[in-house]
Amino acid sequence: MKRHNFSAGPCVLPGSVLQQASEAIINFDNGLSLLEISHRSKPFVDVMEKARALALELLGLEGKGYKALFLQGGASTQFLMVALNMLEKRAGYLNTGTWSDKAIKEAKIYDDIYEVASSKDANYNYIPKGYDIPSDYDYFHCTSNNTIFGTQMKEFPNSPIPMVCDMSSDIFSRELDFSKFDLIYAGAQKNMGPAGTTLVVVKEDILGKVSRKIPSMMDYKVHISKGSMFNTPPVFAVYTSMLTLDWLKNLGGISAIEKENNKKAQLIYSEIDLNPLFKGFSSKSDRSTMNATFTLTNEDLKETFETMVKDAGINGLNGHRSVGGYRASMYNALTLESVGTLVDVMSELERKA
Amino acid sequence: MKRHNFSAGPCVLPGSVLQQASEAIINFDNGLSLLEISHRSKPFVDVMEKARALALELLGLEGKGYKALFLQGGASTQFLMVALNMLEKRAGYLNTGTWSDKAIKEAKIYDDIYEVASSKDANYNYIPKGYDIPSDYDYFHCTSNNTIFGTQMKEFPNSPIPMVCDMSSDIFSRELDFSKFDLIYAGAQKNMGPAGTTLVVVKEDILGKVSRKIPSMMDYKVHISKGSMFNTPPVFAVYTSMLTLDWLKNLGGISAIEKENNKKAQLIYSEIDLNPLFKGFSSKSDRSTMNATFTLTNEDLKETFETMVKDAGINGLNGHRSVGGYRASMYNALTLESVGTLVDVMSELERKA
Repeated sequence: MKRHNFSAGPCVLPGSVLQQASEAIINFDNGLSLLEISHRSKPFVDVMEKARALALELLGLEGKGYKALFLQGGASTQFLMVALNMLEKRAGYLNTGTWSDKAIKEAKIYDDIYEVASSKDANYNYIPKGYDIPSDYDYFHCTSNNTIFGTQMKEFPNSPIPMVCDMSSDIFSRELDFSKFDLIYAGAQKNMGPAGTTLVVVKEDILGKVSRKIPSMMDYKVHISKGSMFNTPPVFAVYTSMLTLDWLKNLGGISAIEKENNKKAQLIYSEIDLNPLFKGFSSKSDRSTMNATFTLTNEDLKETFETMVKDAGINGLNGHRSVGGYRASMYNALTLESVGTLVDVMSELERKA
Repeated sequence: MKRHNFSAGPCVLPGSVLQQASEAIINFDNGLSLLEISHRSKPFVDVMEKARALALELLGLEGKGYKALFLQGGASTQFLMVALNMLEKRAGYLNTGTWSDKAIKEAKIYDDIYEVASSKDANYNYIPKGYDIPSDYDYFHCTSNNTIFGTQMKEFPNSPIPMVCDMSSDIFSRELDFSKFDLIYAGAQKNMGPAGTTLVVVKEDILGKVSRKIPSMMDYKVHISKGSMFNTPPVFAVYTSMLTLDWLKNLGGISAIEKENNKKAQLIYSEIDLNPLFKGFSSKSDRSTMNATFTLTNEDLKETFETMVKDAGINGLNGHRSVGGYRASMYNALTLESVGTLVDVMSELERKA
């Protein structure tokens, strides 16, 4: 049976990427596995350089003073690295969900943090707007997409200070003027590859401005100076991310995938709005194209709906415990057909009920 | 042609492990790839728990107050985490090579470090002995095997303070009383799996004794409390490490592989000592069973030797730039047959010359 994988991440990846990654484990370079070659060998250095170049190319940031790094430790380590590298006195954070909240908590260890706005009072079902960003702060931090709550920033402020964005769950999914951002980070395991590496895209001239001594592994400048190979990189995760970025480039890049993502989002949100058995969780104007969160209006139908979902080959639809209900994660590699299958099940439930 | 992979790491892994890892990328759980399932799903939680249990079982540390974690960031991140979690006033480090030296450098950011002994003056070609470990320090740190120089600690001190050991390049290769150590860490990419995860085995009761506030991702207690799943783990690297540990268990565990490793080491070192064309780099009593470092006694034979090596399907034999010459890395998954092939080439060179 065909599987329709709505997992929130790690999540569905392109079939061709999985095939190539699987083959590279057996034979990558003259009979040697990708896993057993030196990371300093030319074949792997080429992979790393291609991955770094593709990231900048897809974001339209080539030749604009940015460097791309593939690090370890997930976005959770970036919460810490951003503060260590950029926080001298005070920073402003926009609190739009669990991950923003965690980023704030980690940065507070190092210095003073100011929440420029928060939607915590409404269980993060909307994105705050109209806040001020003090021009004397070190940087402004925001989270572009909130997987758990299904909200997404549609507009970004014109920040008077360096703007840092956690794009873990929607990077490479829509066109933005990425040059508005000074530092972008994203765990690979949504739109980019397997868990185990994190993309950091940083404008070099914002670095080196804090007075603290930064441990080598936490220092962006160290990683930049070593071409993202200060220590042994997560070879397999970087290779598979490179394959996924290459897949996206061949599809036509971000502008092409954005059209697909918009179609998928329109399809599911139309069903949520038109089908009386379902109700969306997040504020309509802030709805994420990546994660649609919704609940049944009649909990008695829970068992029937979930059986139908399972029978249709759909998995990963459970909502996060902080929201409940369901969450359809529709990252780049999820097909319109899969969303169609879910929408068919939702319509079928309405006919049955 | 059969390849004989002497890479220093990432390095050769068992063929059966590569086969299973490759298959899991296509189908791990009911048609879904290992890379696209939730790390919170039962199949992956089972993998993580099995990997953690196997690590403790193979080291003989079950039920002795230790926890095993699979983290990200390599041993280089452990240089930092050890200091953050354990260094309050002063620690003692044994300096036996490039990696010890880096560990010292990172820890110095946080507090005072004392080198109990060093072999830096002799380009690290031996392991210092007979040093004192002050009983009022926070901990003692050593590196069990020095890949670059080809030396290995054969005896460990009876430390009056917690003993921390970087075992990146020889963990699971020989029987030791692992309960002498309070914290052991090891990057996976030698004897355990692919690059991208680091095993930390820590005795819980040594933690929680420093006064600083530790960032969550750097805090062993946080990772322990979340079963090594505080954030998304490097799924593929953990799975493949689990397969490799299981392979070792099925072989008969550390005692069985140690016999093989000793045979491989004896074979190459005999050739180095008996063949007048080669000279060993490290002090005989400190020779590593994992990495044999040697040079040609007559540099004129370099081209001939390297051509013969290549023709025999041998790769990864180049020495590190700090030592020069050659390095045969003979990790657990390298076969005696591969060492035999190298030794045949060395003997053949003697016959020819």
